[in-house]
Amino acid sequence: MFERIAVVGATGAVGSIIIRLLQERNVPAKDFKFLASARSAGNTLSFQGRDFTVEELTHDSFNDVDLVIASTPDETAAEFLPSAVKAGARVIDESGYWRMKPDVALVVPEINPEAALSATGIIASPNCSTTQMVLAMKPLHEISPIRRVIVSTYQAVSGAGLQGSTDLRDGTKAQLENQEFEYRAFSHPIAFNAIPQIGSVKEEGYTSEELKMVYETRKILGDDSIQINATCVRIPVDNCHSETITVETERPISPEEAREAFDAFPGITVSDDTANGVYPLPSICSGSDEVFIGRIRKDISHPNGLSFWCVSDNLRKGAATNAVQIAELLASHLFQKSETNAG
Amino acid sequence: MFERIAVVGATGAVGSIIIRLLQERNVPAKDFKFLASARSAGNTLSFQGRDFTVEELTHDSFNDVDLVIASTPDETAAEFLPSAVKAGARVIDESGYWRMKPDVALVVPEINPEAALSATGIIASPNCSTTQMVLAMKPLHEISPIRRVIVSTYQAVSGAGLQGSTDLRDGTKAQLENQEFEYRAFSHPIAFNAIPQIGSVKEEGYTSEELKMVYETRKILGDDSIQINATCVRIPVDNCHSETITVETERPISPEEAREAFDAFPGITVSDDTANGVYPLPSICSGSDEVFIGRIRKDISHPNGLSFWCVSDNLRKGAATNAVQIAELLASHLFQKSETNAG
Repeated sequence: MFERIAVVGATGAVGSIIIRLLQERNVPAKDFKFLASARSAGNTLSFQGRDFTVEELTHDSFNDVDLVIASTPDETAAEFLPSAVKAGARVIDESGYWRMKPDVALVVPEINPEAALSATGIIASPNCSTTQMVLAMKPLHEISPIRRVIVSTYQAVSGAGLQGSTDLRDGTKAQLENQEFEYRAFSHPIAFNAIPQIGSVKEEGYTSEELKMVYETRKILGDDSIQINATCVRIPVDNCHSETITVETERPISPEEAREAFDAFPGITVSDDTANGVYPLPSICSGSDEVFIGRIRKDISHPNGLSFWCVSDNLRKGAATNAVQIAELLASHLFQKSETNAG
Repeated sequence: MFERIAVVGATGAVGSIIIRLLQERNVPAKDFKFLASARSAGNTLSFQGRDFTVEELTHDSFNDVDLVIASTPDETAAEFLPSAVKAGARVIDESGYWRMKPDVALVVPEINPEAALSATGIIASPNCSTTQMVLAMKPLHEISPIRRVIVSTYQAVSGAGLQGSTDLRDGTKAQLENQEFEYRAFSHPIAFNAIPQIGSVKEEGYTSEELKMVYETRKILGDDSIQINATCVRIPVDNCHSETITVETERPISPEEAREAFDAFPGITVSDDTANGVYPLPSICSGSDEVFIGRIRKDISHPNGLSFWCVSDNLRKGAATNAVQIAELLASHLFQKSETNAG
């Protein structure tokens, strides 16, 4: 088992779930430490029946640690994670900073576990909106190469951190009472609204969130020829991102064939009976570790097209779960099978 | 001017706005009558400073009427509007029932006014999600024929009638207070959720709402070769539908060319400066009669592709405004210009 796992960003929206998952899934480690910014340091965390004091993240935090799971803003990851690598720890990072660096592995364990196992430096976990899409793409891509994807997202406020959730709740209350409200996580009111911008504007009028879906997907699937067009939209949902996905494959994949392939793929749950009102909903999928797919149908606008609806808990499979799964993957290869299965 | 305009469904979500618009825009008529189901008959309506009693809709309601503007459920339109035609009235219908009948005109005045002017029977107004999309398509289609459209909608609850708005407000309040709530307009909770089904399931797993966007668009543009793939999703927005639209045209249309064409087209307002957070938002567009377009950019997944974000007030341009514009169009051709411009 690991000597000591450090969770960086332990008090954040994703960090809290990483800690819960480490406990629930019994990730094998002799000890743990919990790191956060100076503001949160000193707080007490209950974990596996013990009280831990949250420590301030410094460059010296990693000397007694062999695995780091970090969920922080990009700047923090950029500044501190090289120190963890230098200290000899394996590092799993949730931030956007390292993902596209050539010597960094970008991993969804169901898709490219080998990239995590052969990594010599940081192992990055993809952006939440990418993870669920690329997992849905993988079984199709195995049947016939995906040539093009058009995706529109319906993203939850929890993707903007704890402040995003607070903003939605308090802004909604204020609007119901006709009160003014000043949003902190969003530049426009999110209550009863739809905001077609997530992140900053980059090349060709696309946002950083949209381009993450392009470049991260190509890196994870190891196929730079896939053409991807994303529109990312924030909607007043607390948790779980939804996506409408249309793919064009080299040869047509029928809805039946797709349904079977989705069903057989680890980490995917098909929920698809529209006539009876059965499809994934954020309200149902929140708290689950899977990627849920429904509305699977032929793209009636293209002979090789397929369309579907994809929902996943952006804090779980979109972030915390994926990171913890990478940790489990490392553990299962580093340590005795019998030991890692102890939980 | 018209002798007498009858508004059918006068107490509904769209009917109320039709009445407000008839007053605001001073649609020329000597008299008006307001019709509704037996349940609402007897209510008093204030219009142009007079009190009107809402009358019960019957087959004899149309004998003294030369223009009918109807916004009712499909069954009501199916049953009663032929009586209006038989009585010699011109009929503008908001329902879905008549739109695709071969002898019915389906009209967006900025696109195909001639269809309204040559109509001998019912003139239908398109489905709300179609109207804003087809208006956005028209200026592009004029530059270079649109071959394919992929659209995802973010539809407001007001499209489900007054009960939709009540459901969202009361369901949201209940959820904020951890109370149970029974939705009447939706089969799943709409508060803080996204429901990927609007209407019933039809061919190939598409919903009625999605197929309306296919067939109505082709009829209005008079081009059955356009391939359209729609996914219609209800989100917790009170009013204004939003859409992500990706089109493929015969030859590429640059974002600049598209922006100019949108700008020059009647009924369209471009709001497009993403770097400064400027794009159409439901919260801003509600109450306006225009179709708003932003996020105009090259579709980076296709050489002839263009993507944009489109928002419009589904009760106004998506319904009431379009119907009243058809009435104005008829008036301007039936009567003296000087008279119709009196307002």
